[in-house]
Amino acid sequence: MVGGGRGAFIGAVHRMAAALDGQIELVCGAFSSDPERSKASGADLFLPAERVYATFAEMIRKEKERPEGDRMDFVSIVTPNHMHFPPAKMALENGFHVVCDKPVTFNKAEAEELVYLVDQTDLLFALTHNYTGYPMVKQAKAMVKNGELGNIRKVVVEYPQGWLSTRLEAEDQKQASWRTDPKRSGAAGAMGDIGTHAENLAEYITGLKITQICADLSTFVSGRSLDDDGNVLLRFNNGAKGVLHASQISAGEENDLNIRVYGEKGGLRWHQMDPNTLVTRWLDRPIQVLRTGVGELYPEALAAARIPAGHPEGYLEAFANIYRNVAFCLQARLAGKEPDPMHLDFPTVHDGLRGMQFIERVVESSASKEKWLSF
Amino acid sequence: MVGGGRGAFIGAVHRMAAALDGQIELVCGAFSSDPERSKASGADLFLPAERVYATFAEMIRKEKERPEGDRMDFVSIVTPNHMHFPPAKMALENGFHVVCDKPVTFNKAEAEELVYLVDQTDLLFALTHNYTGYPMVKQAKAMVKNGELGNIRKVVVEYPQGWLSTRLEAEDQKQASWRTDPKRSGAAGAMGDIGTHAENLAEYITGLKITQICADLSTFVSGRSLDDDGNVLLRFNNGAKGVLHASQISAGEENDLNIRVYGEKGGLRWHQMDPNTLVTRWLDRPIQVLRTGVGELYPEALAAARIPAGHPEGYLEAFANIYRNVAFCLQARLAGKEPDPMHLDFPTVHDGLRGMQFIERVVESSASKEKWLSF
Amino acid sequence: MVGGGRGAFIGAVHRMAAALDGQIELVCGAFSSDPERSKASGADLFLPAERVYATFAEMIRKEKERPEGDRMDFVSIVTPNHMHFPPAKMALENGFHVVCDKPVTFNKAEAEELVYLVDQTDLLFALTHNYTGYPMVKQAKAMVKNGELGNIRKVVVEYPQGWLSTRLEAEDQKQASWRTDPKRSGAAGAMGDIGTHAENLAEYITGLKITQICADLSTFVSGRSLDDDGNVLLRFNNGAKGVLHASQISAGEENDLNIRVYGEKGGLRWHQMDPNTLVTRWLDRPIQVLRTGVGELYPEALAAARIPAGHPEGYLEAFANIYRNVAFCLQARLAGKEPDPMHLDFPTVHDGLRGMQFIERVVESSASKEKWLSF
Amino acid sequence: MVGGGRGAFIGAVHRMAAALDGQIELVCGAFSSDPERSKASGADLFLPAERVYATFAEMIRKEKERPEGDRMDFVSIVTPNHMHFPPAKMALENGFHVVCDKPVTFNKAEAEELVYLVDQTDLLFALTHNYTGYPMVKQAKAMVKNGELGNIRKVVVEYPQGWLSTRLEAEDQKQASWRTDPKRSGAAGAMGDIGTHAENLAEYITGLKITQICADLSTFVSGRSLDDDGNVLLRFNNGAKGVLHASQISAGEENDLNIRVYGEKGGLRWHQMDPNTLVTRWLDRPIQVLRTGVGELYPEALAAARIPAGHPEGYLEAFANIYRNVAFCLQARLAGKEPDPMHLDFPTVHDGLRGMQFIERVVESSASKEKWLSF
Repeated sequence: MVGGGRGAFIGAVHRMAAALDGQIELVCGAFSSDPERSKASGADLFLPAERVYATFAEMIRKEKERPEGDRMDFVSIVTPNHMHFPPAKMALENGFHVVCDKPVTFNKAEAEELVYLVDQTDLLFALTHNYTGYPMVKQAKAMVKNGELGNIRKVVVEYPQGWLSTRLEAEDQKQASWRTDPKRSGAAGAMGDIGTHAENLAEYITGLKITQICADLSTFVSGRSLDDDGNVLLRFNNGAKGVLHASQISAGEENDLNIRVYGEKGGLRWHQMDPNTLVTRWLDRPIQVLRTGVGELYPEALAAARIPAGHPEGYLEAFANIYRNVAFCLQARLAGKEPDPMHLDFPTVHDGLRGMQFIERVVESSASKEKWLSF
Repeated sequence: MVGGGRGAFIGAVHRMAAALDGQIELVCGAFSSDPERSKASGADLFLPAERVYATFAEMIRKEKERPEGDRMDFVSIVTPNHMHFPPAKMALENGFHVVCDKPVTFNKAEAEELVYLVDQTDLLFALTHNYTGYPMVKQAKAMVKNGELGNIRKVVVEYPQGWLSTRLEAEDQKQASWRTDPKRSGAAGAMGDIGTHAENLAEYITGLKITQICADLSTFVSGRSLDDDGNVLLRFNNGAKGVLHASQISAGEENDLNIRVYGEKGGLRWHQMDPNTLVTRWLDRPIQVLRTGVGELYPEALAAARIPAGHPEGYLEAFANIYRNVAFCLQARLAGKEPDPMHLDFPTVHDGLRGMQFIERVVESSASKEKWLSF
Repeated sequence: MVGGGRGAFIGAVHRMAAALDGQIELVCGAFSSDPERSKASGADLFLPAERVYATFAEMIRKEKERPEGDRMDFVSIVTPNHMHFPPAKMALENGFHVVCDKPVTFNKAEAEELVYLVDQTDLLFALTHNYTGYPMVKQAKAMVKNGELGNIRKVVVEYPQGWLSTRLEAEDQKQASWRTDPKRSGAAGAMGDIGTHAENLAEYITGLKITQICADLSTFVSGRSLDDDGNVLLRFNNGAKGVLHASQISAGEENDLNIRVYGEKGGLRWHQMDPNTLVTRWLDRPIQVLRTGVGELYPEALAAARIPAGHPEGYLEAFANIYRNVAFCLQARLAGKEPDPMHLDFPTVHDGLRGMQFIERVVESSASKEKWLSF
Repeated sequence: MVGGGRGAFIGAVHRMAAALDGQIELVCGAFSSDPERSKASGADLFLPAERVYATFAEMIRKEKERPEGDRMDFVSIVTPNHMHFPPAKMALENGFHVVCDKPVTFNKAEAEELVYLVDQTDLLFALTHNYTGYPMVKQAKAMVKNGELGNIRKVVVEYPQGWLSTRLEAEDQKQASWRTDPKRSGAAGAMGDIGTHAENLAEYITGLKITQICADLSTFVSGRSLDDDGNVLLRFNNGAKGVLHASQISAGEENDLNIRVYGEKGGLRWHQMDPNTLVTRWLDRPIQVLRTGVGELYPEALAAARIPAGHPEGYLEAFANIYRNVAFCLQARLAGKEPDPMHLDFPTVHDGLRGMQFIERVVESSASKEKWLSF
């Protein structure tokens, strides 16, 4: 693991998600840019001192020197955005698979280079757009794919948060600091941090591509340099229209990612904060509320749930579904087998590049007087 | 009453709303462009035959001939859009107050003429943007006005319906026919019929003015000429940003008008389909769910509710609040008194003109390559 | 109308409910036991002074003297419980139909006498167990009747309120005063006021009869003499079991009457505070959320709704459904026709007697050491 | 681990819950009464063959022979009810701490013996009444304890499920088979399996003791011998009243454990299926919706959550909270320290005995003609 030392948020999430299903064991790490902090963090995690490294470069080098079967199988990168690319590149170049937090890199050029490297090395590269790991998101995708809604006409995807309503970064809150810092976060703030999740979710569920965007980004909190709110009109490759908005100043909102998809025959709605429920509506039939574990669901949805109906599974379980699929694919490789196609269902470096393009284009669109930019 | 004969929808709504509080009695009508139908409808409503008229012109003329105190007090106009202006104009010119369904007229020019007439005659002109009649909408407006949310930053207002997902107008469904017909509905379809409600609600609650719009209207159902879906980016006069979308092809949606308003200190959310609830969220406090009849509400909200907490009041009661305020204002005029300022809280011809401007500008914006049009 | 003068609650509800559909006109009243208050209330309601009476006896006598066609058609009784019987008896004896608030009388003996009188006179007697007027309650009843749930096994019916959590009657609150006074309310407090609604709703929807009860009533607020909370185990005539609880000290609850009915094949749930929704659950199928106005509903449900899906109808509309059915039955009688069977769907004096039996038996059961009392 | 081999449900839950926080590692097991199945299950779990045992007796014996520091620290028992006592007794007698699934034993006598053994050995014994592990349950408990609701008056606790609506046990469904078998499940069916959770939750949150019960158990599915539904009236040691009902034939219900607690000043409501929400209601203030991660919560609630507001934590996380507290207590013991009092917050063998008493008494009460049995 690279990053995720004391005080971090997403590192612990990755560790819990990786541990949940008993398929993955944390064996080493470079947990902080501060070597002392890295050591201390490793000790917290019951790791032997010799596998807690001062830098990611040391980790990759030393692990590679270990005998096969006794070295790490893959690298998890959980650092701030500007520190994704260096360890990812080095890992790939040294033959290690990669699981990387999103957005994949600091800018689009880096993402393109990673795509090139992954294609060259044929290594696995998973991107933790974790919201696609939820069973009912997979159900939604399968329903659209199987034509249950008919041709898609409209998509509304929202990602409101309120935690950056005040200038938290001025209070030295670690999560706020790097996310609002253009040198560590990249070209966009809210749009990069959570807008990309919304974009990814919309394309994942609908199977469509966004082809044109018209964006209006804002920075409401004075003293902040990156956007903390953005509204975007969308046009899709099949003629569907849509709206995407993401915000970190929607005061009082927690983490309310949600999506509505409307087709000719029906519509569906999913809320991340009530993740085991998928509400479907129909032209002339009653609303059907699909629930994880109830009635007939698509195999993709069934495989992504662990426990019976009414026993809520949440964020960590969805996150774990990405790690579990990666683990199964690695096991298949080790066994010299083709992976089960269902296990290939995790976001990759290509989704990462798409996200970087999204960031670049919404920032451009917001600054432009032209209405539509292609995407 | 003009319009609202057999087979109509909104006419019956106006009658129930007017009757509810025992302040208003239906005394005459020209219920249909078909005189026979008008007669039959009048009989259904227990009206004496001599006060059921063949045309609105006859009604206004004959009622005016009746002795004062024995003639109608005001005219309710509940016809399709293209037939609002003629009776409204004639009523005003003959000294009758007017209650008119929305949008106020067929086009902006007519609306401007009505504004002029109302200003000249000093008669009452109420527009049934009925959603502003809900107690919790009034509570929301009062909360914003009193600064409870701080400066407003973001507004999301939505009006999804699904009933025009198929070409219902081809099946001779009366409500669908005129709403999708540019000769009777006006320049816009969904945007005129329900988008104007959304626009009105957003400005009513926030007290702000929309100053710039960027719209993308669509017609998804083949063979239809007016828009059945539209997405609009908004900018407000205080720097707030927003999104408005309205749709009649959001398959399976009933009548889900809803609004979210976020300020520096908190946010609020109201859903028309759960109208007695106002959800408020705060930066560092728990969510507060305000309910009609529970705890301390603003006087405007209290006055708009009739029955205790937990006894749901709905659409007709909100609609009736407009009629009741009109009745109270008429009574004040008859008594030679100033009306209670709270009774002046109903939409007027000025809101109607604003709505016609909105229709005109979203249609223009949708056709334009320029990103922002002033509004 | 008897009762319902200034300061009353339910009288205004009856008036709005009766007025809503334009079928019923208030023509006279004895609005208060205080003649001055009665006069003033009648003036508020725009009634001619000569038809505002000092007492119900005077009203019945004088109205009877008026020529047929110019007298009241029926009497609405909206007084506290102890004053239901005298006007109801006199009205029936003088040939007037009756609409009466619930519980029907002060005690069971009075209810039995009314049943006898109604049977003798063949007059209409409607009891405003208004919750059975909701469209989705009628839908639920029809679903059970048509076997959609299979044989019924379990019923849970709840009626929690919190408004009597403190000794409001000591503050001279009118609604609290008579409801907590054994001389005006009867043998039971909460169980009479709202427990009877729950009992009525359970039997109405399921079509079953409660045959055994085991009750535990409490008075939590010190200084109060009647129960303010009660829990009851139920057994039904088909072997189903159930729970009924009603409370006026469930702090913070508004008026949350709700019911769940489970059969062999499925279950349903209805909440009075979200009345246009009926949630149905099934053994191996997704939850179906039925909504007023969406998809195929039973004719009884359709007839009880006035406006399209997503336009909420509430308490007053449900209440009005009782009045409307009564009006239709009266019109049929006047026309010498058989009423439409669907219009006979309103609670009668027999439901009233059943309620009085319920009150009597839960009070007995609560005081008894025996587990089960027959009902 | 004892039990939890292939085909089991709760064993996997225990493993995921134990693994989640990186504090506990599975080191050995006797996963099935069938030695072959035990071996295979151990291999699935990546355990070395020599630590996969044929029987729990072998496991306990052999692990005890291993050097200290290299043997298991505690035993998790996840077998059907009748097989809890033998391994628990042997583990305690051999110095191993125990985590045991609920209900703690097959009958009360066994539970009493375990209480004795735990008291004698001073070993840790955790019972996985996992629902007390949810952050908002801990918040509810703390609110009651701190008097926020005032003196408690009424408790309604429900546990409806529908999965045994048909005779699933006849189809050889493993979970159904043992739960409906008096030889493996004990004296009660639904009341033992889930009624004890409800009883435990009510006493945990309120801090009160149930002192009297009046029960009505039923077996609705023909051919079944244990209860599949039960309704119970409750009286508490402070004078509060209540209702508890649990069911496995509430068709269509998933796992809807929920509780409402009303005091003099306010009420609260928690639903297991929406676990991160705690709805609180007040006499004269708006509803407050408390959410994991939002605003000020009690330390007990904060400590039980891992990730920020709006990132749903579910059943496994609540379950893991029990394991994590056990792990922290074990670490304290190993370090020779007193445990943090907050880490002692997990159900113990005493809760287990209480549950067995509950089972015994509700069965007796249901068969009795006497209304109230002491508890």
